[in-house]
Amino acid sequence: MAIPATVPLRNDLLDEEPYGAPQLDVPVCLNVNENPYEPSAAVIDSIVKRVRQIASTLNRYPDREHEQLRAALAEYLKKETGVDVPPSQVWAANGSNEIMLQLFQAFGGPGRTALSFAPTYSMYPEYARDTFTTWHMTSRKDDFTVDVDAGIAEIKRIQPSMVIITSPNNPTGTPIDVSDIERIVAACQHVSVADADESAHPIVVVDEAYAEFRRPGVTSAHTLLARYDNVAVSRTLSKAFAYAGARVGYIAASQGIIDALRIVRMPYHLSALTQVAALAALEHTDEQLSQVEHLRRTREDTAAWLAQQKYHGHELAVAPSDSNFILFGRFDNRHLVFEKLLQRGVLIREVGPDGYVRVCMGTDDEMNTFKRELTHVLHELDESGE
Amino acid sequence: MAIPATVPLRNDLLDEEPYGAPQLDVPVCLNVNENPYEPSAAVIDSIVKRVRQIASTLNRYPDREHEQLRAALAEYLKKETGVDVPPSQVWAANGSNEIMLQLFQAFGGPGRTALSFAPTYSMYPEYARDTFTTWHMTSRKDDFTVDVDAGIAEIKRIQPSMVIITSPNNPTGTPIDVSDIERIVAACQHVSVADADESAHPIVVVDEAYAEFRRPGVTSAHTLLARYDNVAVSRTLSKAFAYAGARVGYIAASQGIIDALRIVRMPYHLSALTQVAALAALEHTDEQLSQVEHLRRTREDTAAWLAQQKYHGHELAVAPSDSNFILFGRFDNRHLVFEKLLQRGVLIREVGPDGYVRVCMGTDDEMNTFKRELTHVLHELDESGE
Repeated sequence: MAIPATVPLRNDLLDEEPYGAPQLDVPVCLNVNENPYEPSAAVIDSIVKRVRQIASTLNRYPDREHEQLRAALAEYLKKETGVDVPPSQVWAANGSNEIMLQLFQAFGGPGRTALSFAPTYSMYPEYARDTFTTWHMTSRKDDFTVDVDAGIAEIKRIQPSMVIITSPNNPTGTPIDVSDIERIVAACQHVSVADADESAHPIVVVDEAYAEFRRPGVTSAHTLLARYDNVAVSRTLSKAFAYAGARVGYIAASQGIIDALRIVRMPYHLSALTQVAALAALEHTDEQLSQVEHLRRTREDTAAWLAQQKYHGHELAVAPSDSNFILFGRFDNRHLVFEKLLQRGVLIREVGPDGYVRVCMGTDDEMNTFKRELTHVLHELDESGE
Repeated sequence: MAIPATVPLRNDLLDEEPYGAPQLDVPVCLNVNENPYEPSAAVIDSIVKRVRQIASTLNRYPDREHEQLRAALAEYLKKETGVDVPPSQVWAANGSNEIMLQLFQAFGGPGRTALSFAPTYSMYPEYARDTFTTWHMTSRKDDFTVDVDAGIAEIKRIQPSMVIITSPNNPTGTPIDVSDIERIVAACQHVSVADADESAHPIVVVDEAYAEFRRPGVTSAHTLLARYDNVAVSRTLSKAFAYAGARVGYIAASQGIIDALRIVRMPYHLSALTQVAALAALEHTDEQLSQVEHLRRTREDTAAWLAQQKYHGHELAVAPSDSNFILFGRFDNRHLVFEKLLQRGVLIREVGPDGYVRVCMGTDDEMNTFKRELTHVLHELDESGE
């Protein structure tokens, strides 16, 4: 993409490209961690009913505070995590993208640093770039878990305004135990923030976009909300609720953090349609969560299957995942694996550490196709020695 | 709103409040320039039909490039302005708020300045604040028109990256002739931008949010697009299409400007629901434009009526408006006028230059109520001498 020099694009954007996976028309798309199950007829009926109800009010601005939706999200969180969060401490936006952007707008900026644990979600540096926040990555261990002591030492050294912990992590699927998150949150309360009031401490943003897919016994970071005012937990309806097209992300945090987001949000950022579509999805929580349970089993089965496959005589490395995707490798040339699968009608993602690729969980049929085609590809690679 | 000092809110936001008019429950709301006419049954049917059609795809991410919507907007622009803009040079977002934010994200930032003509839309400084862009206002004349020569001199002096011209202006309703806009656009092509490549020139953003309400014979700035690559014209479905609740803004500009927005936009910023809701509204263009014609007549009638009213023995000052609202005054204490009308169930807006208030065009019934109650209020003020 060549933007003419006559247009005064920001200097630091001159060589940038629009973010996003290729939008290809492929029979089996397992590349962007979508939920493969279409909304059910019951969900669609709820959407249509609610849209028809509010359509005659679309000439009016929507509720800026989206109070009904925040109450419904709080109710859902109570059910899913066991934690009682008041609706005023919940906030929604157009995808967790916009939630994260609002966090960076409120707490980042020139002179401020956001810190996270690499490898992790590739959009974070874009939020930092868009808000002139310095982006600082500290490495995860070789097994993609967070080295908590090293992380805390780095937080003390850097004095970031924001620490971002992705759990389960994307693209590795790795969870971080809530007791480890708590150690980081607690440590942050004794860390100052560069370029802030001396009583300010780093906020810890736990990105739980894929949390519903976690294994039994893994505790949500929501359990920390009552005891710490510097923690925020973001989620989305995109994955567990199969609602990527509706763009609904949300966050639970202390009132101070929510009020900060209210300062930087665009007025009326959440359309009346988005608000009622989210309410419609939340009417069908039990159904959605049972689908999540099926995808969780699909992940366990797929991970077990992948671990048995051989590449050049060695078993594949499969990152333990609490998410709806699996990172596996390592290939000498991951692009070749990606390309060969694509030629066979299966789209996965080249992302994360060198030599790894990521596949997200599709329908049973789609996963059978994936396994069949990957078997062919691995065989071809063995034959050609590539 | 008190945000605790433990939360590292950006230093320049410490005393800020969330932007927005009070959300009050009042019988006659004429405060936020909404279109008073509900979407018709035909529009609602189109919305519901399209939502039902795409609801089963909501588990997938929406089209990042929203190509169908851009084509429909281009077709509408051709009909309304007579100008043929290729769909690739049209771009939509969640309200013109988000369009403007994306413009500031792409072309503003630390070291950059955006310039506009005061008094004007009160959200602009918020976009600047949210992107660390310096905000520079130069005054309009006493009649709220733009002094083009003085404006150009100021642009040369300031070397902004962005010049924002609101036409018709908000909150004054004042249009600026397209020949005057062209003088500014042409002049900008000989102005350098501080902190940019030497071949870069300021872009001129013409905010035409209310353009459909312009008087006959007023030409849209879209006519400049074919000849200048540094001009961008933004519009919205909120006003003419009575769609404030759906949050759809859009812009037409050179390919370079559009491509710059694609770099800073959130991936999948526009939900599948927003995309089809916008398409549904655009199916009913003729119906919407005939409603606009009625509101235009309401404005002319209301302006004529206001000009005949007396405050403390003098006729009211009524700013000539090409919009769906009218700024009038001058009152010694405009807050008193606002409060007294509110007590009588009519909500208007205290905004713009000292002593003025703004009323937007409601239904015929609402305008009769407004006129009746304002008559009472003016009488009361005369009686009390306030």
